[in-house]
Amino acid sequence: MHVVAVGTVAFDSIETPFGAVDRVLGGSATYIALSARFFCPDIGVVAVVGDDFPEAYLSVLRDCDVDLEGLEIKEGGRTFAWAGRYHYDLNDRETLATHLNVLTEFEPRVPERYKSGSIVCLGNLDPSIQRSVVEQVPDPRLVVCDTMNYWIEKTPDALVETLGLVDCLIINDSEARQLANESNLVRAAGMIRRMGPRVLIIKKGEHGALLFTDDGVFSAPAYPLEDIHDPTGAGDSFMGGFVGHLASVQDISIDALKRAVVYGSAVASFSVEQFGPDRLLTVSESDIDRRAQSFRDMSAIPSLSPLYSG
Amino acid sequence: MHVVAVGTVAFDSIETPFGAVDRVLGGSATYIALSARFFCPDIGVVAVVGDDFPEAYLSVLRDCDVDLEGLEIKEGGRTFAWAGRYHYDLNDRETLATHLNVLTEFEPRVPERYKSGSIVCLGNLDPSIQRSVVEQVPDPRLVVCDTMNYWIEKTPDALVETLGLVDCLIINDSEARQLANESNLVRAAGMIRRMGPRVLIIKKGEHGALLFTDDGVFSAPAYPLEDIHDPTGAGDSFMGGFVGHLASVQDISIDALKRAVVYGSAVASFSVEQFGPDRLLTVSESDIDRRAQSFRDMSAIPSLSPLYSG
Repeated sequence: MHVVAVGTVAFDSIETPFGAVDRVLGGSATYIALSARFFCPDIGVVAVVGDDFPEAYLSVLRDCDVDLEGLEIKEGGRTFAWAGRYHYDLNDRETLATHLNVLTEFEPRVPERYKSGSIVCLGNLDPSIQRSVVEQVPDPRLVVCDTMNYWIEKTPDALVETLGLVDCLIINDSEARQLANESNLVRAAGMIRRMGPRVLIIKKGEHGALLFTDDGVFSAPAYPLEDIHDPTGAGDSFMGGFVGHLASVQDISIDALKRAVVYGSAVASFSVEQFGPDRLLTVSESDIDRRAQSFRDMSAIPSLSPLYSG
Repeated sequence: MHVVAVGTVAFDSIETPFGAVDRVLGGSATYIALSARFFCPDIGVVAVVGDDFPEAYLSVLRDCDVDLEGLEIKEGGRTFAWAGRYHYDLNDRETLATHLNVLTEFEPRVPERYKSGSIVCLGNLDPSIQRSVVEQVPDPRLVVCDTMNYWIEKTPDALVETLGLVDCLIINDSEARQLANESNLVRAAGMIRRMGPRVLIIKKGEHGALLFTDDGVFSAPAYPLEDIHDPTGAGDSFMGGFVGHLASVQDISIDALKRAVVYGSAVASFSVEQFGPDRLLTVSESDIDRRAQSFRDMSAIPSLSPLYSG
């Protein structure tokens, strides 16, 4: 398997100033898989749903060539459901309801076929569940991890233990500050990288993303969107594009990591253009190519001459 | 004159978590001039101080080859004084005291020598005072303007009138949102550019800066600083480096504007390393060259190949 997307497959109910949708296909593993598939084949999902999960949603994933052997369908169980509301500035969201349902007893089991040569992509979940997945994959190509403020506050010890097994952590700027307990992002990045992840990506929403490695810092811009309809899944789409590119080139050099950040940003910028995962179902590879190239154009600094020739 | 820096020359009293200074040399015109001088000669100041302003501070400016013919020294007057405090995250500042003093009756007079071929650089001031300066310069090479939320709220009509005379506006992201009454920065930028300034720079602090022109958007990163001691004057230093570069190359092409944003960012990144303008007095041209080059390196995206060759 190229990419194993571990996380949630869910019902999302979303309100934004531009509309509302009810119980659409959602969840971190969904967005990761639907985004990675533009870059490489062989994408498997490790997640759980209830038997209320509609066949139509399974078909959406299958039609996008996502392997569902790792998707447990729990008999008599109800699928994880989330409801949230975004206000006008779209930066903060309000959670209206979280029904964990089958997630409360989620014991992920990684199919044998998924275990060889995979990039393991840990969507936001309880850190101890994330760890149990990593421990099932004896020789992962790369372990990439997301988390959120909830786990930083509630289960810091479990999170630190999981981070020790992670090659690349992808979090947003407020989470980075909270995790390191340090307001300066550069210092915070150094502290987090000493917890385990040699590669750290700090997402800054409309301000782009920073990539920290042993080679220093790389700064990627955000795409200047005029119409953002629904930010749900943007972070997971970023992660999917990021790991999808790395899986496709089978390379984790600094240049590959930089390109992966740009592809992740490009896919995320499409994802927010429509509600739920809708835009990810219609965007084309050449759309993504063009947008990635526009990231390159908009951040290219012309050559510089010395201020004084002396 | 290459650059005419219009604004305040002031006493600043600053507290940050890293120390405090009392009545140091400050003011927008001071920071603009001390930053522009790395790039071009012939920098004049249009400002007012009281006769309490120490000769030693005048010498600092003169020693940096700043022309002071446009600096009015008001007999019996007291110099504008500002006191502020920064908290740990350094993003928000609290104004502790503002003594306008001689600024209340400031009627700027642009010396004849300053009027030919100048870039007029309007530091943050009452918009009607800014306009009175522009009206004294019959054929400016470029008019570059700063403003702040205070004027957006208190004198919106005067501000709009001034913006009609401005080629390039430099403001921060919250000011841009407030000025356009629009939370989406890309939309806000379009609305502000229709008020007059064909070139708009939106500063985003630790997130870099955006340049909006007829050619689209250019995104410049911020320098990832571990040690910021005093943010005072960062915006004015940016403006000084920006106009200094444009004056030195006598060019306002899109590439010149992009480089100017990078040089502005580079000078600002030094300015915040020490209290007041201290760092601007010790940094060298080759320091600025190296930092500008590092901006270029940290935002360079490697070449991209199409996702599918078909």
